[in-house]
Amino acid sequence: MQGLTIYAPFLGILSLVIAFLIYGYVKKQPNGSKIMQELEGMIHEGAMAFLKREYSVLVVFIAIVFILLGWGINWQTAIAFLTGAACSIMAGYAGMTAATRGNSRTAEAANKHGQAMALNVSYFSGSVMGLAVAGLGLLGLGIWFYIYGGSPDTAHYINGFAMGASSIALFARVGGGIYTKAADVGADLVGKVEAGIPEDDPRNPGVIADNVGDNVGDIAGMGADIFESFVGSVIATIAIGATLAITPGWLASRPELAGLDELAIRLKYMSMPLLVVMAGLVSSFVGVFSIKVFQKGNPAGALRYTTFVAAIIFVILTILVTKGLGMPMGAFWAILSGLLCGIAIGLLAEYYTSGKPVKVIAEQSKTGPATVIISGLAIGMQSTYLPMLGICVATFIGYKMAGIYGIGLSAVGMLATVGATMTVDAYGPIADNAGGISEMSGLGPETRKITDSLDALGNTTAAIGKGFAIGSAALTALALFVAYTQAAGLKVIDITNPMVVIGVFLGGIVPMLAAAMTMTSVGRAAFSIVEEIRRQFREIPGLLEGKEGAKPDPKTCVSIATGAALKEMVAPGLLAVLAPVVVGFLLGKETLGGMLLGATTMGAFLALFMANAGGAWDNAKKYIEEGHHGGKGSPNHKAAVVGDTVGDPFKDTSGPAMNILIKLMSVVSLVIAPILPMLGWIVG
Amino acid sequence: MQGLTIYAPFLGILSLVIAFLIYGYVKKQPNGSKIMQELEGMIHEGAMAFLKREYSVLVVFIAIVFILLGWGINWQTAIAFLTGAACSIMAGYAGMTAATRGNSRTAEAANKHGQAMALNVSYFSGSVMGLAVAGLGLLGLGIWFYIYGGSPDTAHYINGFAMGASSIALFARVGGGIYTKAADVGADLVGKVEAGIPEDDPRNPGVIADNVGDNVGDIAGMGADIFESFVGSVIATIAIGATLAITPGWLASRPELAGLDELAIRLKYMSMPLLVVMAGLVSSFVGVFSIKVFQKGNPAGALRYTTFVAAIIFVILTILVTKGLGMPMGAFWAILSGLLCGIAIGLLAEYYTSGKPVKVIAEQSKTGPATVIISGLAIGMQSTYLPMLGICVATFIGYKMAGIYGIGLSAVGMLATVGATMTVDAYGPIADNAGGISEMSGLGPETRKITDSLDALGNTTAAIGKGFAIGSAALTALALFVAYTQAAGLKVIDITNPMVVIGVFLGGIVPMLAAAMTMTSVGRAAFSIVEEIRRQFREIPGLLEGKEGAKPDPKTCVSIATGAALKEMVAPGLLAVLAPVVVGFLLGKETLGGMLLGATTMGAFLALFMANAGGAWDNAKKYIEEGHHGGKGSPNHKAAVVGDTVGDPFKDTSGPAMNILIKLMSVVSLVIAPILPMLGWIVG
Repeated sequence: MQGLTIYAPFLGILSLVIAFLIYGYVKKQPNGSKIMQELEGMIHEGAMAFLKREYSVLVVFIAIVFILLGWGINWQTAIAFLTGAACSIMAGYAGMTAATRGNSRTAEAANKHGQAMALNVSYFSGSVMGLAVAGLGLLGLGIWFYIYGGSPDTAHYINGFAMGASSIALFARVGGGIYTKAADVGADLVGKVEAGIPEDDPRNPGVIADNVGDNVGDIAGMGADIFESFVGSVIATIAIGATLAITPGWLASRPELAGLDELAIRLKYMSMPLLVVMAGLVSSFVGVFSIKVFQKGNPAGALRYTTFVAAIIFVILTILVTKGLGMPMGAFWAILSGLLCGIAIGLLAEYYTSGKPVKVIAEQSKTGPATVIISGLAIGMQSTYLPMLGICVATFIGYKMAGIYGIGLSAVGMLATVGATMTVDAYGPIADNAGGISEMSGLGPETRKITDSLDALGNTTAAIGKGFAIGSAALTALALFVAYTQAAGLKVIDITNPMVVIGVFLGGIVPMLAAAMTMTSVGRAAFSIVEEIRRQFREIPGLLEGKEGAKPDPKTCVSIATGAALKEMVAPGLLAVLAPVVVGFLLGKETLGGMLLGATTMGAFLALFMANAGGAWDNAKKYIEEGHHGGKGSPNHKAAVVGDTVGDPFKDTSGPAMNILIKLMSVVSLVIAPILPMLGWIVG
Repeated sequence: MQGLTIYAPFLGILSLVIAFLIYGYVKKQPNGSKIMQELEGMIHEGAMAFLKREYSVLVVFIAIVFILLGWGINWQTAIAFLTGAACSIMAGYAGMTAATRGNSRTAEAANKHGQAMALNVSYFSGSVMGLAVAGLGLLGLGIWFYIYGGSPDTAHYINGFAMGASSIALFARVGGGIYTKAADVGADLVGKVEAGIPEDDPRNPGVIADNVGDNVGDIAGMGADIFESFVGSVIATIAIGATLAITPGWLASRPELAGLDELAIRLKYMSMPLLVVMAGLVSSFVGVFSIKVFQKGNPAGALRYTTFVAAIIFVILTILVTKGLGMPMGAFWAILSGLLCGIAIGLLAEYYTSGKPVKVIAEQSKTGPATVIISGLAIGMQSTYLPMLGICVATFIGYKMAGIYGIGLSAVGMLATVGATMTVDAYGPIADNAGGISEMSGLGPETRKITDSLDALGNTTAAIGKGFAIGSAALTALALFVAYTQAAGLKVIDITNPMVVIGVFLGGIVPMLAAAMTMTSVGRAAFSIVEEIRRQFREIPGLLEGKEGAKPDPKTCVSIATGAALKEMVAPGLLAVLAPVVVGFLLGKETLGGMLLGATTMGAFLALFMANAGGAWDNAKKYIEEGHHGGKGSPNHKAAVVGDTVGDPFKDTSGPAMNILIKLMSVVSLVIAPILPMLGWIVG
């Protein structure tokens, strides 16, 4: 069974081939009228321009870190780092390419063939991202595992791969998050509020940037986030397996392992996570293609069923893997706890952002914007409680069932079927874009109705996806933290030692500061877009009046948004990378351990708080727009719009940035663990 | 020197006698016209009615806990608990009595004698609270130390005193916080917004409730908070001293202790915190009376100088105590670090709530309420960073200078001069009330100018006081946490143990939930007041038009606000008390240790975030009202009012509730530590 890990890269390649074939299928679909093709082209171009400029900034960062790693740690880790970064970039590029081709084709499918076909096109466009994330992850992990996974002593080189993925994720998530909200807010502020023209109106030069933003934030950003969790959870579990403390007592409680020597046991434990994600990818293939069966029915049900199909097959395969590998069954239960926890957190996010809490906020709009804000903040805070309890339960079960190794497995279990779950995540922004394109190109009300309903569904899947991303980030960060303590050779990290308490406090500072930074960034970046849109309305004759031939210049808007986002992502990015390095060297390994826990705790709570508050405000506004409490244009609606505007950077910029922050800090610590001083330069 | 602790109760009584004499002096001052006397009477009556009803709820709670403690732990602790609760109640009662007598007298002093005399009256009215807090604290601590402090084995009975103080503080802070904001928001909403009459207009039936709220929240609530910190820090340090791990290495680095046996060393360490707060009280006497020297000058300077005088004398006395007791000088440095940290955190709070950040928020009002909220939230988050760093530095210095005992001393150092600092805190709401009374009773513009300037100064001292309260709460909670680990006999609390990580996560949940609960509570309670004010405007003929003889019925408003606040305080109160008990018994001592750290971290960050964001919004609104960005009534002003309204429960209800929460959780854990199972019923 263990030998099957050699097929991991091939399975990864298979996934990429399937993704490529699906892309071909999507590309073959008709992409509608000339206007639609033009819009698609502009969005595609804008998204690619953003990626290109983002990557050109990242190349510098990657080169510097590559040299520092090679020089300070070792070149094996440095090279793994490089490939991790490359895989993340490729996944983002593949997903974006497919998504920005799928949008117009979804609109055209809705126009010509109705809902089932539109769902089919958008879903398969999204699956390119899902399969690319899982495929590239497995390809990289498989190759490095083949090279370094044969011995517990060399396995730690693989950590570099996770760090590469994390570094890209940080910038993709933060930069993408700033871009998407700055463009959204900027376009709305001048378009809807100042000029009084509807959303997605083709006269507005910011609309293309807004549509680009959906792809940049929710496809590339989300993809890099999940890719990082996927890779990070597997690598953390390998690292824990490689450094397990195998004592007679430990062995006695695992009769399955009787007669094996230490090395054999370690290699078994190291190969398990890889085998589990292989099982997950196979399950995802089935899950993705099961859409063909479900697409005729209710779209919400169809999307849900595809992930359920993947999950059920995955559970069966995992039992086989556990048995086949001769592992204790506790390992299976640990994996199952993670899988169920991921589903639970997703459903909780759905409840808080589209259930009763939304109506509570909408109700508060009667007494003005202040009460909308207060109730949204309270709901956001309250919404942290059950998901965190879920993470505690998953951690508890993982630990009880398979020791600290079980915590790693629990994270892997949550992420293994990422091919299917990420497909659903990527579906959302594609449907959103399709809606925008059918509006801008003036497709009929029948078509609009279909794209609107698919778009609304996309908002729900986005909420679930966000909850899942946070849950998986928290559990992955925890697994990486455990791996860090092992790699650093820390037998205990003792919070009765005040230096560790100081670490926890310092850890809490980082997410708070990063949240503050990114929220302010959105405002600044939005302001530069506002100025550009105002300039165009002022300087392009006849644009605002909608005169024939008066065309906006969306490219400049895209370019300004790109520049602003990339500038703003540097400070929080450096904060996340440097904080653990500085604390590790100045205050020592143990304080850094405390810092990681403090950052993970604060980051997970803030992420849930901000994502759910933001989602709830968004939907409270939509609920009023549906005609409740006075409907669109009423003072109540205006109050709800304030909540929505505050919620935008909350849910799409600062909240998601937390996911990356906590994983990146952990993975940086894991990589530098071997060279850190025990006591630190200040303390020692 | 050690023998001097016997005088602690007498020094406490002296402080109470001085407070009583000062009260006599305040009471002797003329209290103005008949209207002013009536207003004073109504505020006084309302405040006392609130206290009476609050205490009648608390009596039930206290009786239950008393029996549970006596039965489950021991009767010594239970009796100490009872006295702690009684002292807190008496301190609140004394402070409220003086404050509600000082308001009209301050207004009359401003009217007849000018600023210096008005400052004098309001300051001395506030000093009753300051001296009562310090005096009752020292009285109780002194007596229990005399009875139980003679042996390290019985010292833990004193913990009950801290728990009593904490229990009252929770309800006083939470109940008071809900009351004050519900009344404020309710009165403003109907009065200013709906009826369009000015603030503090005598026609508004909610104005008296609003003025009562200032006393209930900022005098009784704040007093109970600081009383708890004061008592908690001393008791934690005694507990740490009683359980010090005295090893040869530890002794070797403290040559001052050479030749002493273990018991003698312990008794020395146990008596030090008491001697330090005795020194602090003597310094406070001098500080308080130094106002006579400074009152002629700038009022802001005068208040600041009184605390500086107390601080400087305290530093000198502390050196004498350290030398006289034959303690290592490290103990002195630990105390100094706490003292300086307290001052620094206060000044940082002042900066964030009245410095440049306020102008940044005001600037954002140009683009509407949403950007006001976003920038306020970002500034609140950002503002957590330096104060938390300050706490880390104080902890670091305390620890480096005197081990974990130094962390306790650091907290004691921050709080020892509480007689002087609490006086300044209590001054604020008195000046605020005086402003309200001079408005309502129609005193001339000259008088208004004086009371307004004293009121504005009161807002600044309130911000500093809030910062100080948070800082001291965090440091006290940390000291109590250390004491808990000692009392629980935990040599290590290891975060590589996932059960401890779970504890940290669970700890983070409690402040989040309590913040959510209290924010929602304010809204609900405010709503019931709004309804009552509307009813009066509707049913009392001629009230709104200001007809002769048409009088509002403020008593019913006060009664409704009281009932609502008391109802709302129950749930968060029980959460804070029960959470550590449940986790301690179900998951064991070590997990509970993790929980305390998680709660302290999350609670301290949230407290800083909410207090500073709220304060900054408040002052941004005031800044616009001064005539910037369009001034009062402009759309920018309206946007800023939204921020202010959101900030109200932030800074006066939920934020301060965090202080109590983290201390109460720690002190409950400290008390139940001896009977907790190591592993917990679920885990074991």
